[in-house]
Amino acid sequence: MHKLAGIELGGTKTVVVLGQAGRIDERLEFATTEPEETIARAIETIEGWRDDKPVDAVGIASFGPIRVSREAADYGCLLDTPKPGWSGAAVVAPVAAALGCPVALDTDVNAAALAEQRHGAAQGCDSMVYLTIGTGLGGGVLICGEPVHGLLHPEIGHVRLRRAAGDGFEGACAFHGDCLEGLLSGPALAARLGTHPSRVDAENPMWEPVAHDLAELLAMLVLTVAPERIVVGGGVAQRQPQLLPMAVGRVPTLLGGYLRDCTREKLGGMIVPPQLGDDAGPMGALVLASRALEDRVAAVRHVPAAA
Amino acid sequence: MHKLAGIELGGTKTVVVLGQAGRIDERLEFATTEPEETIARAIETIEGWRDDKPVDAVGIASFGPIRVSREAADYGCLLDTPKPGWSGAAVVAPVAAALGCPVALDTDVNAAALAEQRHGAAQGCDSMVYLTIGTGLGGGVLICGEPVHGLLHPEIGHVRLRRAAGDGFEGACAFHGDCLEGLLSGPALAARLGTHPSRVDAENPMWEPVAHDLAELLAMLVLTVAPERIVVGGGVAQRQPQLLPMAVGRVPTLLGGYLRDCTREKLGGMIVPPQLGDDAGPMGALVLASRALEDRVAAVRHVPAAA
Repeated sequence: MHKLAGIELGGTKTVVVLGQAGRIDERLEFATTEPEETIARAIETIEGWRDDKPVDAVGIASFGPIRVSREAADYGCLLDTPKPGWSGAAVVAPVAAALGCPVALDTDVNAAALAEQRHGAAQGCDSMVYLTIGTGLGGGVLICGEPVHGLLHPEIGHVRLRRAAGDGFEGACAFHGDCLEGLLSGPALAARLGTHPSRVDAENPMWEPVAHDLAELLAMLVLTVAPERIVVGGGVAQRQPQLLPMAVGRVPTLLGGYLRDCTREKLGGMIVPPQLGDDAGPMGALVLASRALEDRVAAVRHVPAAA
Repeated sequence: MHKLAGIELGGTKTVVVLGQAGRIDERLEFATTEPEETIARAIETIEGWRDDKPVDAVGIASFGPIRVSREAADYGCLLDTPKPGWSGAAVVAPVAAALGCPVALDTDVNAAALAEQRHGAAQGCDSMVYLTIGTGLGGGVLICGEPVHGLLHPEIGHVRLRRAAGDGFEGACAFHGDCLEGLLSGPALAARLGTHPSRVDAENPMWEPVAHDLAELLAMLVLTVAPERIVVGGGVAQRQPQLLPMAVGRVPTLLGGYLRDCTREKLGGMIVPPQLGDDAGPMGALVLASRALEDRVAAVRHVPAAA
């Protein structure tokens, strides 16, 4: 049995875990501070779990934007980020150097998508989206079971979709105003509702335009990515459980009868809350670690016989 | 060398080709009529090319919506379509039955994406989108080199994005009004401009809101799918070559400085016209045929030794 470690590197806190794909055995959480200090603490934590043998692989699920393409010169480094001190910070290299084992990297949301697909609410769905609506709004996408990368990685939170008629809220995103994050994240909801979202009860009509915006996001994903499942997690989704069914109910109307498969009933089974909750990120990091090991196994298999 | 056939089944015309992946040797085009008649004519054409030996595999690139999931009971059948007589029509089964060889199916746009990725403007890009803007607006998506399927397949033309401020055009899509197809397709442009688009010269400011809508589509794709390349083809894109650079120039502003990688220069190299023109569909059908053969080869390899 392999010994795996995972690091969920978040904008505010970092979670380090020891376990297997599908099981967390040890966990330590601490505040994300400076890059060097934070990464060093994660490494020390993992080294402290050495016992009889070191870990076989580490998976890192990081906030972004981060370079996930292994061919890039700045692979494993944060890109421009508003988080002070983190632009350009190397995340993969110091972990690999210190622990001397395979290290895999992906975004926190792609990792959470992998975890929900392997062990949670999207089992059996090779094509799925994991959305998290909390402090920010992010999305991880799996196609054929593989996390989507390309130019960079999906940044679904910053798509600007159609606003509900008569909804004048200007949005709260520093970059784009009323992109999805600027409409649906926790801080956006506080600005939009004029109070903490928890103070607005579920029946309040103020949730209607919010449900509309979430429905536009779901419809866009159905039309663009054609996922078999959409898992909607994060603090906002968790604390306002009325929002998801309200939004799902609006999707068939937005699709305008175009995809008759997409009935409200079918969409209700397809667009679901997560099963792993806050564990999706760290469990995703463990899935990444197990994938790093598969890569190494594959690499070993391809060594020429003469070597 | 394998002998491959391709069928591009379009809403108005059908193109049948003989060749190899990357090369068309024979071609016949005819109007798409009733399903039985159209499919029978495609089969006869392919049988007529038999010469010394029958074809080894056939690829079908079809208009949609069509069931592309092999596990589905209605695999290879058209779904609800406004095209008279075609709802529910079987496309794969009669071809496989008549020709007795592997038959692969995908949407016309996914097939065109495969062709541009293997032989055209997106070589080396495992993650790419092929858009066609003509009578309709469609998009094919490849991730890790594989066409995206899931619940169904992408229907990018029917996404509704943010309209330009002050643009009052109500859109021309029968289902959704001002979805992308309702704003950017040939018929939509004719309604929007009040005349045939070819009568409006490239410098006319009437193109500004059109370029805006195309830019919103490009920005949405960059944020959602993170493609390494977007190939924009189809009659409208071809006849209004000013539109693509106008739209690309607007994308960095829409991204609001969020992805600093996405400079106008970088986007200009990433969002490009097709190289295969009208051959993308039939060449994509030949790529599908070659993939069908790889599947069969794989299947044969997996037959147990005792069999």
